[in-house]
Amino acid sequence: MAEFAFKIDAVSSGGRAGRLTTPRGVVSTPAFMPVASRGAVRAVAPDELAATGTRILVANTYHLHLRPGEDAVAALGGLHRFMGWPGAVLTDSGGFQVHSLGELRSIDDDGVTFKNYINGAEIRLTPEVAVHIQEKLGADLIMQLDYCTSYPTPREEAERAVEITTRWADRSMKAQKRGDQRLLAIVQGALYEDLREESAAGLVAMDFFGFAVGGLSVGEDSEKMLAAADFTAGLLPEQKLRYLMGVGRPQDLPAAVACGYDLFDCVVPTREGRHGSVLTRNGRLNIQRAEYGLDEGPPEPECDCYTCTHYSRGYLRHLYLAGEGLADRLISIHNITFTQRLMADMRTAIIEDRLDAFITDFAEAYIGAAS
Amino acid sequence: MAEFAFKIDAVSSGGRAGRLTTPRGVVSTPAFMPVASRGAVRAVAPDELAATGTRILVANTYHLHLRPGEDAVAALGGLHRFMGWPGAVLTDSGGFQVHSLGELRSIDDDGVTFKNYINGAEIRLTPEVAVHIQEKLGADLIMQLDYCTSYPTPREEAERAVEITTRWADRSMKAQKRGDQRLLAIVQGALYEDLREESAAGLVAMDFFGFAVGGLSVGEDSEKMLAAADFTAGLLPEQKLRYLMGVGRPQDLPAAVACGYDLFDCVVPTREGRHGSVLTRNGRLNIQRAEYGLDEGPPEPECDCYTCTHYSRGYLRHLYLAGEGLADRLISIHNITFTQRLMADMRTAIIEDRLDAFITDFAEAYIGAAS
Repeated sequence: MAEFAFKIDAVSSGGRAGRLTTPRGVVSTPAFMPVASRGAVRAVAPDELAATGTRILVANTYHLHLRPGEDAVAALGGLHRFMGWPGAVLTDSGGFQVHSLGELRSIDDDGVTFKNYINGAEIRLTPEVAVHIQEKLGADLIMQLDYCTSYPTPREEAERAVEITTRWADRSMKAQKRGDQRLLAIVQGALYEDLREESAAGLVAMDFFGFAVGGLSVGEDSEKMLAAADFTAGLLPEQKLRYLMGVGRPQDLPAAVACGYDLFDCVVPTREGRHGSVLTRNGRLNIQRAEYGLDEGPPEPECDCYTCTHYSRGYLRHLYLAGEGLADRLISIHNITFTQRLMADMRTAIIEDRLDAFITDFAEAYIGAAS
Repeated sequence: MAEFAFKIDAVSSGGRAGRLTTPRGVVSTPAFMPVASRGAVRAVAPDELAATGTRILVANTYHLHLRPGEDAVAALGGLHRFMGWPGAVLTDSGGFQVHSLGELRSIDDDGVTFKNYINGAEIRLTPEVAVHIQEKLGADLIMQLDYCTSYPTPREEAERAVEITTRWADRSMKAQKRGDQRLLAIVQGALYEDLREESAAGLVAMDFFGFAVGGLSVGEDSEKMLAAADFTAGLLPEQKLRYLMGVGRPQDLPAAVACGYDLFDCVVPTREGRHGSVLTRNGRLNIQRAEYGLDEGPPEPECDCYTCTHYSRGYLRHLYLAGEGLADRLISIHNITFTQRLMADMRTAIIEDRLDAFITDFAEAYIGAAS
């Protein structure tokens, strides 16, 4: 049986510096996971990802189930070999994507039914099926199927989401057959503290490898999101891995780390990359702006990423305006590197017990510059 | 003054193995030049290009003049630094692109007038302006402005194209100010042998570093193209560099090399890459086909390129169908590598005096398989 472990090395101002051991290597936490929805991080190749400092990434069960299908991924050697990615992988359960379908899906006590957007066929997902698909995909960490709510969510729906998600957590655990994957449960409850308590209590009573917090970053403002994230983190066991789903913008990560989460994922670095938005220590830089047309400097002067050590702002602006896909790639590489450096810097700050000061400085430079 | 030279090492069945020395290194010929129209080979980064065996590439004066403009490229360090490409660069003169505009341009004895497709402004290109722009762009090899004809071309137009192109060649040479670039003249004359003779005679009388053959690969079939290319090559000085413009499909390159050309350019490897078409020794492979869905093998089994050593046909098919830009990149890298290997193999075959046998074998595998 493959070895998994999560150990905390240091704590500072609520933030935890840890080590997540997986069969695909050790991941230093807090860790940011770039999103490879369809088995590829948009425009970025695996060796480029490794060079950004990425050690774990997220793939989408929903997307891969629809295309090419888990059987194809299994036949092609499982997700790691399929993608050519030697590091760790987490697959979500499809709960969030199904949630996003809105009217196109229906949730009953046993599972969810939705339409395949590629061919219109009806698809049925139960907790057991979600585990089964993820076992075929072969990630290191897998997620239970959950009932994810939107913002705002009526209390009755949030109650139902908690109840169903807890029951599905138990069924997911029982459905697991592979011994070389670890399952994470998902806390729901929207912004209702008592429901978050109820959800966490139900899940913590079961022996999961880690706990995720879902139903946040679904439309509420950062303040509400962080308040709920902070409250919910306090309900989770100290020694277990904590994953704050869908959170990963530079303006949110420091506070989220200080809440005590270890894993994060977000499409922002690559999505911003495709929109010509360069993340820098002093806020976002819009590469389209005319002022960068003759700018020989690197996108971010202090950055040592491939993009910043090889290309000028002027060239990136040109590529972006000319519609060259190379622009997406180069800016995405920088943005992921920027995010990974932020995580590494926070880890160091936690170990040196100065997370609070780090966060203040970062916010002053990043958010201060933006406003 | 920078050093330029062209030396022929061996000749076999009409094909020439040579060495083109430029300030950016020595290019073994026959050489294929990938096309970086807007200052980037579509989806492929410079280090990836170097790994395919590419030592020289083509950039488009027309596209770069329109955006970002030669002054911006100059301000950003010239084409090599702008693109991050340390190898040699050739810029075309814009003649071919202007030709492609059809009704949107008018050619008089002094130059051409056309509309900027980006902002509608009228643009005037003369032989002097084309040289001036190319001097600002800073390529190693530059091209005279020419009058490129279509297929079919009335004799009167072909006559005019020859007359104007010869006059513009002289003006281009006189307009050159930089000493670290070499100018190539362009033979026109469509499919009229006497006009090709007249064109070549006029240009060869002037002391150009090399001679290009234009007005081919513009719609005529391969047989007509190769017959004209073969005839025209015989009109050019033995010891000078010869560039067959716009020719670079695997089915055309062997015969074109046997005509005695040294340089080639073509968008096919990258365009095919974006359309999911993988060039292989046994013809093109359409990655979309269902039969590759579970294929664990590399795109081309014997290939040592980045793509073939890291990814399966099944994964590339998935990326292509999912619309992931990574597919364009990976297949383009393979297709350029395939083309460069073909050039290197031909060079070896010329040195070993077995070009004829090589071409027969290649055609049997590549074209035989396709039919």
